Amino acid sequence: MYDLKGDVLIEDEFLRDGLQNEKRLFSIEEKLGFLTDLEAAGCRRIQLGSFVHPKWVPSMADTDELFSRITPKAGVTYTALILNKAGLDRALDVGVKHLSISVSASETHSMKNTNRSVEDARARIAPVIEKALAEGVAVRAGIQSAFGCGFEGEINPAVVLDIARQWSDLGAHEINLADSSGLGNPRQIFDLCRVVRDVIRPEVQLSLHLHDTRGLGLANMVAGLQAGVRIFDAALGGLGGCPFLPKATGNIATEDAVFALTEMGMATGIDWRALKPAIARAEEMLGRRLPGRMGHINQPGDAGTEDLGACA
Amino acid sequence: MYDLKGDVLIEDEFLRDGLQNEKRLFSIEEKLGFLTDLEAAGCRRIQLGSFVHPKWVPSMADTDELFSRITPKAGVTYTALILNKAGLDRALDVGVKHLSISVSASETHSMKNTNRSVEDARARIAPVIEKALAEGVAVRAGIQSAFGCGFEGEINPAVVLDIARQWSDLGAHEINLADSSGLGNPRQIFDLCRVVRDVIRPEVQLSLHLHDTRGLGLANMVAGLQAGVRIFDAALGGLGGCPFLPKATGNIATEDAVFALTEMGMATGIDWRALKPAIARAEEMLGRRLPGRMGHINQPGDAGTEDLGACA
Repeated sequence: MYDLKGDVLIEDEFLRDGLQNEKRLFSIEEKLGFLTDLEAAGCRRIQLGSFVHPKWVPSMADTDELFSRITPKAGVTYTALILNKAGLDRALDVGVKHLSISVSASETHSMKNTNRSVEDARARIAPVIEKALAEGVAVRAGIQSAFGCGFEGEINPAVVLDIARQWSDLGAHEINLADSSGLGNPRQIFDLCRVVRDVIRPEVQLSLHLHDTRGLGLANMVAGLQAGVRIFDAALGGLGGCPFLPKATGNIATEDAVFALTEMGMATGIDWRALKPAIARAEEMLGRRLPGRMGHINQPGDAGTEDLGACA
Repeated sequence: MYDLKGDVLIEDEFLRDGLQNEKRLFSIEEKLGFLTDLEAAGCRRIQLGSFVHPKWVPSMADTDELFSRITPKAGVTYTALILNKAGLDRALDVGVKHLSISVSASETHSMKNTNRSVEDARARIAPVIEKALAEGVAVRAGIQSAFGCGFEGEINPAVVLDIARQWSDLGAHEINLADSSGLGNPRQIFDLCRVVRDVIRPEVQLSLHLHDTRGLGLANMVAGLQAGVRIFDAALGGLGGCPFLPKATGNIATEDAVFALTEMGMATGIDWRALKPAIARAEEMLGRRLPGRMGHINQPGDAGTEDLGACA
């Protein structure tokens, strides 16, 4: 049951899902500094930002400039989030080759985020996905609130399946299921990933975007692994979370996900210890401790292990 | 893989593993207040304290008095931890009917905790287990640092297996494997629980004591469930942890474990929402926020859900 095979790809979203809710704005130079740290630690896919209206998310206003400033490293995918046609046009202008494009499976969430029903949002985004594909962009098509909605509670899995099938049929390279409010549990993650896997084309990859709001982030990741998922979103330090959920923690932490996967014998290509200085810098800049664990904890044998004792 | 059957028993250790490391001493009345809350929420096994030398653990000095003051409720087991013969004598004096008795699988941990090698500690504790059993006490025989040691790192599973077999052969009713430093991962938990299950008598129950130090607490609980374990230790609020590990979080939180199990369709008999006032009181008394999540988070539909939004 735990004889899991295959490498795992972590998409770090610190620069997008992490920073988007922070009041403190990060300069281009600061963002590039974190990008360099993520690349140096071995991250192979990094979400740099979103192409959304700067009026709504000021921290993402410089995503265009950020893409124009990067020096791409071999083997690293630089990606971004878009939610509409205007975002796609901006992304294409700066030569982005990989994009996340998503809608919500929750009517309430969809109305609050986009002022459209799920059906309307799907109808609007489908041609955006098609255009991105036609332009040669690798598309990760996503479904927000796939495992539950903070407003509505349960989400009908049939809705998720139907959207996943549509995105797959449109030609998306990857389907991303997002537990946007951190409401999912391992059983549900396992079951839904299995049935989604069955309705999408075999060559389409399946990935998970998990939040640790209820302490189940890594348990849900393991359930995803058991269901065959090998791509997970995470964020340095566990930054992220929802502006409507002030007390909730954010994405699963990249360092914790990598530590857990490494301990379980799966390779990510990322050295979690190498992320520690970047985590410390993020905490200094934000003026608070981030929820990720491994940035603060030594393993037996590490330098500084003297404060790592044992307990009854 | 997640079609898990059977009820789950949570042993709440807030009053022992939770309070033992706190500088603030809790009065008998305060402890009885938390006991009442735990009983009212549906906890069926509660560890009230330890019978250890008051010089080393002052917060547990009143465990004898605490046992003499309780009004046992039908269906609830009141238990305690002992580490030697003197502790057993005290427990018997106040009529304790269920005890945890344990040694460490780590040489360094054993020397630091008891000034004895693992072999010496085992030789000393075996007659204590036998005497407790002869006195009609239900014995949960434990193995600390079973999944790794904060001092030594990896622990040879053969040592754990050998101790488990011995405790089972002595007649213990339950074998408890403790991830004392929170070093275990789901794969390891699953594998070791499976092999321990094979060396102990079929009628002996297997239980897990998990710490959430590296964020894997609930993932490890799920791995234990998948390996057939149906008894887990937890602590209200996630209090607990090691005096040598000041930054580490403690036991898995009772409310979080119960929430996760309930969501996965397993029954514990505990209403996690009913624990919220006790968690808030503990935080007020200790002057800090505890690491458990569900004490601070509403579910969709709960009162106060207006601050439970949804996120992209």
